[in-house]
Amino acid sequence: MATTTDLYGELIERMKKTVLLGSCSSVLGWDEQTYLPPGGGEHRANQLALLAGMTHERATHPRVGELLSELESRSDLGADGSDEQVVIREARRSYNRATKLPQKLVEELSHTTTLAQQAWVGARKAKSFPQFEPWLAKVLKLKREEASAIGYGNGVPYDALLDDYEPGATAESIAAAFRPLREELVKLVAAIVDSDRHPQHEILTRRYPIDAQREFATQAAKAIGFSFEDGRLDVAAHPFCSGFGPGDCRLTTRYDEQHFPGAFFGVLHEAGHGIYEQGLNREAYGTGLGETTSLGIHESQSRMWENLVGRSRPFWQHFFPQAKAAFTEALSSVTVDDFYAAINDVRPSFIRVEADECTYNLHIMLRFEIEQAMLAGDLQTPDVPGVWNETFEKFFGLTPPHDSFGCLQDIHWSAGLFGYFPTYALGNMYAAQFFETADQTLGGLSAQFARGEFAPLKQWLNEHIHQQGKRFRAQELVQRVTGRPLSHEPLLRHLHARFDPLYGVK
Amino acid sequence: MATTTDLYGELIERMKKTVLLGSCSSVLGWDEQTYLPPGGGEHRANQLALLAGMTHERATHPRVGELLSELESRSDLGADGSDEQVVIREARRSYNRATKLPQKLVEELSHTTTLAQQAWVGARKAKSFPQFEPWLAKVLKLKREEASAIGYGNGVPYDALLDDYEPGATAESIAAAFRPLREELVKLVAAIVDSDRHPQHEILTRRYPIDAQREFATQAAKAIGFSFEDGRLDVAAHPFCSGFGPGDCRLTTRYDEQHFPGAFFGVLHEAGHGIYEQGLNREAYGTGLGETTSLGIHESQSRMWENLVGRSRPFWQHFFPQAKAAFTEALSSVTVDDFYAAINDVRPSFIRVEADECTYNLHIMLRFEIEQAMLAGDLQTPDVPGVWNETFEKFFGLTPPHDSFGCLQDIHWSAGLFGYFPTYALGNMYAAQFFETADQTLGGLSAQFARGEFAPLKQWLNEHIHQQGKRFRAQELVQRVTGRPLSHEPLLRHLHARFDPLYGVK
Repeated sequence: MATTTDLYGELIERMKKTVLLGSCSSVLGWDEQTYLPPGGGEHRANQLALLAGMTHERATHPRVGELLSELESRSDLGADGSDEQVVIREARRSYNRATKLPQKLVEELSHTTTLAQQAWVGARKAKSFPQFEPWLAKVLKLKREEASAIGYGNGVPYDALLDDYEPGATAESIAAAFRPLREELVKLVAAIVDSDRHPQHEILTRRYPIDAQREFATQAAKAIGFSFEDGRLDVAAHPFCSGFGPGDCRLTTRYDEQHFPGAFFGVLHEAGHGIYEQGLNREAYGTGLGETTSLGIHESQSRMWENLVGRSRPFWQHFFPQAKAAFTEALSSVTVDDFYAAINDVRPSFIRVEADECTYNLHIMLRFEIEQAMLAGDLQTPDVPGVWNETFEKFFGLTPPHDSFGCLQDIHWSAGLFGYFPTYALGNMYAAQFFETADQTLGGLSAQFARGEFAPLKQWLNEHIHQQGKRFRAQELVQRVTGRPLSHEPLLRHLHARFDPLYGVK
Repeated sequence: MATTTDLYGELIERMKKTVLLGSCSSVLGWDEQTYLPPGGGEHRANQLALLAGMTHERATHPRVGELLSELESRSDLGADGSDEQVVIREARRSYNRATKLPQKLVEELSHTTTLAQQAWVGARKAKSFPQFEPWLAKVLKLKREEASAIGYGNGVPYDALLDDYEPGATAESIAAAFRPLREELVKLVAAIVDSDRHPQHEILTRRYPIDAQREFATQAAKAIGFSFEDGRLDVAAHPFCSGFGPGDCRLTTRYDEQHFPGAFFGVLHEAGHGIYEQGLNREAYGTGLGETTSLGIHESQSRMWENLVGRSRPFWQHFFPQAKAAFTEALSSVTVDDFYAAINDVRPSFIRVEADECTYNLHIMLRFEIEQAMLAGDLQTPDVPGVWNETFEKFFGLTPPHDSFGCLQDIHWSAGLFGYFPTYALGNMYAAQFFETADQTLGGLSAQFARGEFAPLKQWLNEHIHQQGKRFRAQELVQRVTGRPLSHEPLLRHLHARFDPLYGVK
């Protein structure tokens, strides 16, 4: 009879190869978003579908099931909570999920979403939702099939998809977390809108030469701890971070010469994701212990560096002199206080990725409602722009001038990422709660930031979050790291601490 | 019993998937050369080895052998020379070759050459052969194993490798083709070196801003027929062209602000390869009918556009005014005749890819000798620089100042490409012979080039060469297209026609 060690080794070997194969898709996906020539779209879709199918075939190989069953019956595998137990638990979860999906559906989803993303790029450029709608309908149909294949006990197909991104969360639990937050946010935004203080937003729409933006953002990403030895920064229509594996993590952003914050805070955001990827345990690559634990936690890392760090007064105390040197034309007569106020300008606006910290979560809540309705079959794809604009008007008091400022702005649905959006708002809540704890533990981060010291926070995150991999579910991780369950209060405390003085409210 | 049509369909389906999977490796290989961060090398090697192994597994699947044997026994597959027969013939050739290689060797070769290429980049930069030597030894050992696995009847391991690049050729047949060429070249070079005419080479080492070089080269590549809708141009340490598949072909080059011809003729060269790739029959993708027929023929396309077209007087009659506009500082007081003489400067020099048309083939003959000796076991890797420099001195009357100008200059050996070099010189011979025929058939290409018309030549190549795929072996293709077997005479006629008047020789 094979020893437990042998069986475990065989399972690990298989898993590593499967993850390695999946990482080849990441390279092709990155290239698709950054450098693919227009004519190469169909071929790329074929390549990605083939890899998705082969990866799925490996992930669902009957031998994996046998190994798992056998290992689960062994008593000599390690105690509860041991590395081995965590690896088996996560492998079982992935295997069960993967075996529920027919190979054909996996390949079809890959192929369709590759083409749908290409269609989305064109439609967004053309400001034409009808150009994208047939693709949205196709993707939605496949995602509903996916939800059915995964199964959901409670009659809510959304939960089957959400569970892939935020294990353990449900639409219900998220709605409950959002409710008190939304109430408070609406009050805060209203108070700010009523305030008679108005940051000089135009500071940020002066001329910021793109080469200088790239260089400045690169330096900032380096300073907070993203390693360019093990990664790079390129341009893509929709910014993202993709960790290919140990030593290779790719960030992307987009530049607008007339808009400083878009690229800069975008890079800090993606670098936050990248620092998580680069902080994973390399030795555990290919197993749950070397993987990020949930998208919400992932987003907590990006939003922390983007907002809690990057939009803070001490961060700019350190970086503003460098910014003045890099953007002499735009910033020569600007004070750090005016700049700080401008980057924290709160105002209802159309584009989620450029929204301020106060309104951002309302953008998420809008998408959360709409995608739930689509998946439940309560909202047909041709009606999405109408419902989007109506809800937007209700939340923000504004109507998007065209769909590229409305329901066409995000890549997610074209990529099949239904159930993904709420993890952004969860990320904001996790971020604030982690940050409060880090701040207390590390003895005042503000003074460190003002001196340009970001390593202590990064190392704390490395140790308490990144190196843990999937050892704990998001909810448990928050409880363990902060000593409390997830709450909307730290985020609100942060927002009040930052925005009350800026706008003279409360 | 399955019909012939069904079996044939099944074979095609299998082949297409295998080629598609192989094309994923091309994407990762391209990224490795263009954008890979330093820390990602080991992971990339693992990815490429996995894909190489999986591709090999598919290519050697027993079902492919069954299908081939069954189809070969069917009488209703199509007449001799039919598409079906060509596809089966080429599939059989690939299958036989692939099944001779153990999977383990394929993976080891992939993994080792990936790391060896990375080591080569570092060693070349450091001008340190010893830094690269252990990798060369490892690769050589594996390539000798490969040759043994493939087998060679005549005691010449080199032939087993050469056959992969130039089916049907042998070291013997190539040496025979080179012999009369070398004799004549040595005479021609000697006459030119003795000439009292000296082009103003320094014209080409003035300041050529890199952005302008990129733009100008891009426009020229477009003009000769490379489609940027279906391809792109990036930067790599060692320029190459990689056809990923229908609609996606990548060119690379490297820029030196003080050296115009390096990037420009490099781009024309790679664009020539790219035009071949883009000219393949898309519907036949995945079969021999949709593949380039040999490296020699591939090189004939790149060298034709680079030299026979790109360094011709009529080409510059058209492009020189644009060059003057793009490089005002360097070219404002230069005449087209001085420029034409400068780009056709013949002089013994160190770097193959920057060599003139007359000395180029001597660079190849040097490599051809050395790699044969390595494979035969007559030359040990630590002795390569010594033998290189000695032979170089014999051929060129010069000694490389360091190994990056000597045996470290090419990527080929690090990538395992033994037997590849002679295809470059074959390409020059094929190119001249094809070009003579095209010139006669199309009624004088010079006048067309002078008017900026390159489409007739491109279409002639598309029809007579590119669209044929692997229907004919190189030798037969030359015979069919030009009505004669391969000869060194057209190349010599071309060289005399170009260089005799420039140097007042003969």
